[in-house]
Amino acid sequence: MSDIIRKLQQLNESDEYPLHMPGHKRSVGCGFFDDVYSIDITEIIGYDNLYEADGMLKDAMERAARVYGAEETFFLVNGSTVGILSAITGVAKRGERILVARNCHKAVFHAIELRDLQAVYLHPEYLPDWDIAGGIEPQEVEAKLLQYPDIKAIVITSPTYEGIVSDVEAIAKIAHAHNISLIVDEAHGAHLPFDTRFPKSALVGDADIVIQSMHKTLPSFTQTALIHMKKGYADTARIKEYIGYYQTSSPSYLFMAGMDECIATLEKEGSHLWDAFFEMRDDFLKKMAILQNIRILQDNDPCKLVISVKGTSMSGVELQKIFLEKHHIQLEMAAETYVLGIITMCDTKEGFDRLAEALLEIEGSIAKLAQDVSNRGQNSDFRDDLNSLSEWRTCEEDIVYSLAEVREKDTEEILIDEADRRICADYVNLYPPGIPLLLPGERITREHIALINRYLEKDMHVQGVSERRILVCR
Amino acid sequence: MSDIIRKLQQLNESDEYPLHMPGHKRSVGCGFFDDVYSIDITEIIGYDNLYEADGMLKDAMERAARVYGAEETFFLVNGSTVGILSAITGVAKRGERILVARNCHKAVFHAIELRDLQAVYLHPEYLPDWDIAGGIEPQEVEAKLLQYPDIKAIVITSPTYEGIVSDVEAIAKIAHAHNISLIVDEAHGAHLPFDTRFPKSALVGDADIVIQSMHKTLPSFTQTALIHMKKGYADTARIKEYIGYYQTSSPSYLFMAGMDECIATLEKEGSHLWDAFFEMRDDFLKKMAILQNIRILQDNDPCKLVISVKGTSMSGVELQKIFLEKHHIQLEMAAETYVLGIITMCDTKEGFDRLAEALLEIEGSIAKLAQDVSNRGQNSDFRDDLNSLSEWRTCEEDIVYSLAEVREKDTEEILIDEADRRICADYVNLYPPGIPLLLPGERITREHIALINRYLEKDMHVQGVSERRILVCR
Repeated sequence: MSDIIRKLQQLNESDEYPLHMPGHKRSVGCGFFDDVYSIDITEIIGYDNLYEADGMLKDAMERAARVYGAEETFFLVNGSTVGILSAITGVAKRGERILVARNCHKAVFHAIELRDLQAVYLHPEYLPDWDIAGGIEPQEVEAKLLQYPDIKAIVITSPTYEGIVSDVEAIAKIAHAHNISLIVDEAHGAHLPFDTRFPKSALVGDADIVIQSMHKTLPSFTQTALIHMKKGYADTARIKEYIGYYQTSSPSYLFMAGMDECIATLEKEGSHLWDAFFEMRDDFLKKMAILQNIRILQDNDPCKLVISVKGTSMSGVELQKIFLEKHHIQLEMAAETYVLGIITMCDTKEGFDRLAEALLEIEGSIAKLAQDVSNRGQNSDFRDDLNSLSEWRTCEEDIVYSLAEVREKDTEEILIDEADRRICADYVNLYPPGIPLLLPGERITREHIALINRYLEKDMHVQGVSERRILVCR
Repeated sequence: MSDIIRKLQQLNESDEYPLHMPGHKRSVGCGFFDDVYSIDITEIIGYDNLYEADGMLKDAMERAARVYGAEETFFLVNGSTVGILSAITGVAKRGERILVARNCHKAVFHAIELRDLQAVYLHPEYLPDWDIAGGIEPQEVEAKLLQYPDIKAIVITSPTYEGIVSDVEAIAKIAHAHNISLIVDEAHGAHLPFDTRFPKSALVGDADIVIQSMHKTLPSFTQTALIHMKKGYADTARIKEYIGYYQTSSPSYLFMAGMDECIATLEKEGSHLWDAFFEMRDDFLKKMAILQNIRILQDNDPCKLVISVKGTSMSGVELQKIFLEKHHIQLEMAAETYVLGIITMCDTKEGFDRLAEALLEIEGSIAKLAQDVSNRGQNSDFRDDLNSLSEWRTCEEDIVYSLAEVREKDTEEILIDEADRRICADYVNLYPPGIPLLLPGERITREHIALINRYLEKDMHVQGVSERRILVCR
């Protein structure tokens, strides 16, 4: 048991009476939550203070830094979101320029807007066999830094939602050669440092700021996250100050105790913890080797299960529905041609077996249907789109207003076909892969309109376009 | 039991297998948190999504709005902090002017800095008998609005930490007459609407935006809060958008279930819930009527216990120490001449009895010491300071840079005695009462220096001044 939990339990068992927050006074009597309320305290004498830590929270964060191999680690109780907001606010001043991967989490774009930054975009590779975004190419980073020498920092997401990892080491080297910092949104990679069978963490790759959601792949409460910081290229003191701006001044001791408990266990058990996981996963993948129509991505993060039905008669959304309704398996996400599952050290043999059974049964029904359609299904002309999307990447956006500027403009909804030369006022994404085709403030071209129309004709989901209408600046 | 908890328990008892976040997969086996992990889920099919709520979370927020008498209520899982950031970002655009009570929570100043607003300040009354800030006077609000017709919104804190309530109704009327919105940080007043024996909530007073910390005075998890919104003078759609910017995209279902549970109970039990509380409190106050040296503030919020030792030989900090070390009672806060306790419906008869015993015992020891000092103790010339602080209120600050501007300036530490005419670069507060004497960007005068020196000579705590040095712009 972690020191924090032990100390909180001792407090609850002591005769110390609470004339302080929280109002539940450690004993509510509502039944369900009683055990948890009993250790849900706030900053009181003897129990440290997250923002001026010098006791059990300092110890816990130092443990986290040691276990993760970071110079300094700070607990986040408002998710990776607050880490991203704080890091970006800390590395660039109002109006400065930042280099950002186009497939970042929305929090990155929110930070750009709130900070009124000028964004230059990196475009991930597109993996047409899987319809997902790939990694960021280091040479594109280098090219953009040469093109815009006033860039103050770089932000990328690695691994992606689908578990694709970029070459962080190469990108960090380029960043540091240009004397700027690299922020890696590693929200999906809190487990990476714990076993050599996982891809390398950005912490190994020498990124300056690494933000991880603990809850996504580790046994930790939803909404808990970590920010790891390295001094040198980033103003870490300023970033820490901004964490205190964006994050509650009453952080949950429950969350922090849970985070410490999780990290203490990972430290104690080490790689051993993951052996059972890899054994179950390997067994599962062996069983799946006979699949002909359904494909499972294998060179991504092992905690991410990308199950593709591309080129078959089934869509990802249909697959998700069968999983849930027939097999009672709830997936993480469904896209047009694939679904995404998350598997962790907390999964069970029973879970993997049910997953395998479900997939084998579904494979049968797909195979039958697949025989009715030629050339691996209705998606046969899909490659044209992918090529166009691939070409797309090479175009530079025509950014008329920054994300902050466009916020203050009057807007109107017009038909997409009438939008040529107008300035977009909303996020327009092809989902999946969720990479913005247009961001607020970017000029719409005939090429955009043609592409969006092609997607709409295929009933693909274009976020930001509703009933063929799009929000533009007046 | 609330609908959310019931639904989450049913999910856990079902055979539905989680191939999704969180990584603990609802069953961790670490022992302590197991029950709680079992219902800690994220947005999955059938369990709603806070930011696009149309199921159980929508129902829960509508219940909250109904119970609190709000037009619309939104769950906050990052404390009142995120409500304050979102509200202020939503009511004023970059560079616009805002009218703010000088005794607001630091989150208000953070929002002003992040949004790069021009602040005009309201100065609360000062209550010299108790050394605490009083309410905001409506006539000062009116005067400031006439002086600065471009003010876009007003922010005040009511009740204060010490439970002092302003005349929100009068202030809201003035705001609306000027066609602007009133934001009330009611972090300390989530319980106010539930019993007529409490002061009136700002929701009754027709404030446009009211932000409440649920955990402070109600049985709810630390870090849980509510924002209540009324359309008309505030752009509530925009405020809601910003909540999605500042708050995690993975809100804790544990927190939301706990909030719903708390509100459902308050709705069901009604005023009855507070009868035992008021009975215990009345008994306690009757017993305390014999106190001669220690005084208890009685016309503030009944959940706040301000225990003053002003004019005695004991300081608030000493009183806190005796409470904790001798009586094992942990208080909320200690100031120079008083301590603050929080009492709620979750307090017990045993707790009140221990508190009463402790106070009676301490009163005896103070009385004895007090005889040794003339004129009610060492604080006899304190009133001079209070008068000076009182005069202080009438001075207008000389604001050279906004909070955002000063952030980007080079700074240096100099001796306070050499700081005349320099521009302050840090928060300088006399604590208590915690009202800023100087904010970053304000010009330091000889009067400031004299006042700060007088405080330092009396060993009072002036935040932002360390070893007689102060941070100023270069």
